[in-house]
Amino acid sequence: MDEHSRSDKSITITYAITCPREDIGTISENIALEQTVEVPAAVIRDARIFKDIVGKVLGIDEAGGPAGERFNVRIAYSAIVSNFEIPQFLNLLYGNISFKPGIKVIDIEFSDEFIQSFTGPRFGIEGTRKLLGVYDRPLVATALKPMGTSVEDLAEMCYRFALGGIDIIKDDHGLVDFPFCRFEERVAKCVQAVESAQQKTGKRTMYFPNITDRFDRIERNAEFAVKSKAGGLLISPFITGLDCVRYIAGNALFDLPIMSHPSLTGIFYSSPECGIAPEIVIGKIFRLAGIDSSVYPNYGGRFSFSKDTCLSIAHSLTEGMAHIRSSFPTPAGGMELENITEIVKFYGNDIILLVGGSLYGRSDDLTANARYFCEKVKEAKQ
Amino acid sequence: MDEHSRSDKSITITYAITCPREDIGTISENIALEQTVEVPAAVIRDARIFKDIVGKVLGIDEAGGPAGERFNVRIAYSAIVSNFEIPQFLNLLYGNISFKPGIKVIDIEFSDEFIQSFTGPRFGIEGTRKLLGVYDRPLVATALKPMGTSVEDLAEMCYRFALGGIDIIKDDHGLVDFPFCRFEERVAKCVQAVESAQQKTGKRTMYFPNITDRFDRIERNAEFAVKSKAGGLLISPFITGLDCVRYIAGNALFDLPIMSHPSLTGIFYSSPECGIAPEIVIGKIFRLAGIDSSVYPNYGGRFSFSKDTCLSIAHSLTEGMAHIRSSFPTPAGGMELENITEIVKFYGNDIILLVGGSLYGRSDDLTANARYFCEKVKEAKQ
Repeated sequence: MDEHSRSDKSITITYAITCPREDIGTISENIALEQTVEVPAAVIRDARIFKDIVGKVLGIDEAGGPAGERFNVRIAYSAIVSNFEIPQFLNLLYGNISFKPGIKVIDIEFSDEFIQSFTGPRFGIEGTRKLLGVYDRPLVATALKPMGTSVEDLAEMCYRFALGGIDIIKDDHGLVDFPFCRFEERVAKCVQAVESAQQKTGKRTMYFPNITDRFDRIERNAEFAVKSKAGGLLISPFITGLDCVRYIAGNALFDLPIMSHPSLTGIFYSSPECGIAPEIVIGKIFRLAGIDSSVYPNYGGRFSFSKDTCLSIAHSLTEGMAHIRSSFPTPAGGMELENITEIVKFYGNDIILLVGGSLYGRSDDLTANARYFCEKVKEAKQ
Repeated sequence: MDEHSRSDKSITITYAITCPREDIGTISENIALEQTVEVPAAVIRDARIFKDIVGKVLGIDEAGGPAGERFNVRIAYSAIVSNFEIPQFLNLLYGNISFKPGIKVIDIEFSDEFIQSFTGPRFGIEGTRKLLGVYDRPLVATALKPMGTSVEDLAEMCYRFALGGIDIIKDDHGLVDFPFCRFEERVAKCVQAVESAQQKTGKRTMYFPNITDRFDRIERNAEFAVKSKAGGLLISPFITGLDCVRYIAGNALFDLPIMSHPSLTGIFYSSPECGIAPEIVIGKIFRLAGIDSSVYPNYGGRFSFSKDTCLSIAHSLTEGMAHIRSSFPTPAGGMELENITEIVKFYGNDIILLVGGSLYGRSDDLTANARYFCEKVKEAKQ
């Protein structure tokens, strides 16, 4: 292990820690032990383990708080502790300390060596745009819903949305292989539906089936989607396990863009003093794992992210990150068609606008609703 | 879908909701929609979808709170919404509402039909005891650590712990397939080590390697562990994806008891107003998925669970649950050898006592330390 010295080869994690001033030193040192060796320092007999494995506290900065008890602490971990893999990286990031109060991950810097172990998004923003032939405006997306609808009716919706000019039509994240709405039948018929519409309009629409499923079925679902000429794949990384995304994205057999749904990940942001910042989870980490577009709840919708949080997520999906391609920020969650102009102004063109409910609610004519949505986006483009 | 009427075939979830009194009705109805159809009620055209898919609010009870703004809300979901599978069940349980403030899952009642879809633990408490031939006392377990230790040294520790009488020796949850500590070599040598000790003592010790790994390697790791005659498997369900546990536990090829590590799941309990109660996540749901023993941070250790929480977890792992076997409560996380008597008095005999750090710290003679631990447990047994 000797060749791996710290600093240039480390993963540096910044924690916002809330605790009494007299405890911050001990708490910081304990994190460095807890996330690596899981024993008190006194038990470690081998000096190389201190050097190569135990985290190193780089700095403790005051960060205010109601009684001055908030600190930002930077700890550097040798990247070998992550084994350059997603599962062990998650352990390192927040495994055991998820049980401790007052510790929130607010930033990560990856080492080059760590990033080089990942291929990231296969398509990214540029590649997804190329598949659609759309370069000068935000992409327009919607979701097939509600659960309980038959395959025939979902395929009919697909057709109508595609006729209206939608770029990407994804399954709702709760659409799985239901007896009343089988995965394979749904994929076959929805692909057929968007192709029929395309023959009329000449405009490409991509259908993204939800491949989230039992552990032993995800790969089969992805294979079926590829074979059926689906346009992409929808997956909920914290339902399947995050490394599943890395596996699908990194496997040349599954040559389709991947859209992530953030199901369950809200739990990371529910406490102001604990968890992991959203721009890290559904931004930096999902992108590293290989998602081409990351769905997240937009400000002002039916969830509770702030404008600042949304901008941080969009930034982390698109900022420079060695060879890793940019992922499409995909704001969603109760966005109103009337707010499209403002939203595009806020983010710029490089987003996917995912509108579900209000596209269904506007009128019974889904094609007209989709056209209206697309026109709004064309007007709003920067 | 018509044969699935609500009530006897539903999954009932109880939420503790914090909100102004005037909003509780709307918030409850919104949860019932959000976790199923993901559209406003007005958009649903098909009456059968209301009947079969949308959750039904059964009751809203006052539950106090600083300004009387806490409510317990029971919502019944048709079990078909879960598709009788772990991944979609997780979506139903907390997928989208993880992004909403003030909603905490505090109880679940499964329908018989739902439970019948799962096989649960293959061994459970009784089966694990049978493998060890130990029936009248708590089981005694430790972990191989610290990360950075070579395979040879870990195998030597295994040998010494086994000589001292430890029942179960597991990998630390951060021990993965490191270049400096390969999985296959570790499994082979640690199994050999416990077998050598067994030849001396006549007492069975089981080694549980950590099979948590990349998506495409978990199954291979489990196969290798079985082939190598390991005693069991360690897995971190929220690192691999929870359904991976169900897959391994339900597959006759992997005929070994499974111990779960709670890595990352502390995030569910970090906010008093959000998340999912620990007895549900690492109790009820892990058991349903098929773990035979569930590691969790004991009260009074280096994490922050209360005695009440620990008792609730132990209860949810062992209470009656149709055909599903009981799982071993496995308290851990900085337990002191001197507290063993009190801990056994608290839980009774049907636990696995997992002591890591203080077993290493007591003296350099690991066999003597293990003997001391085992004697403490024999003295303490009920």
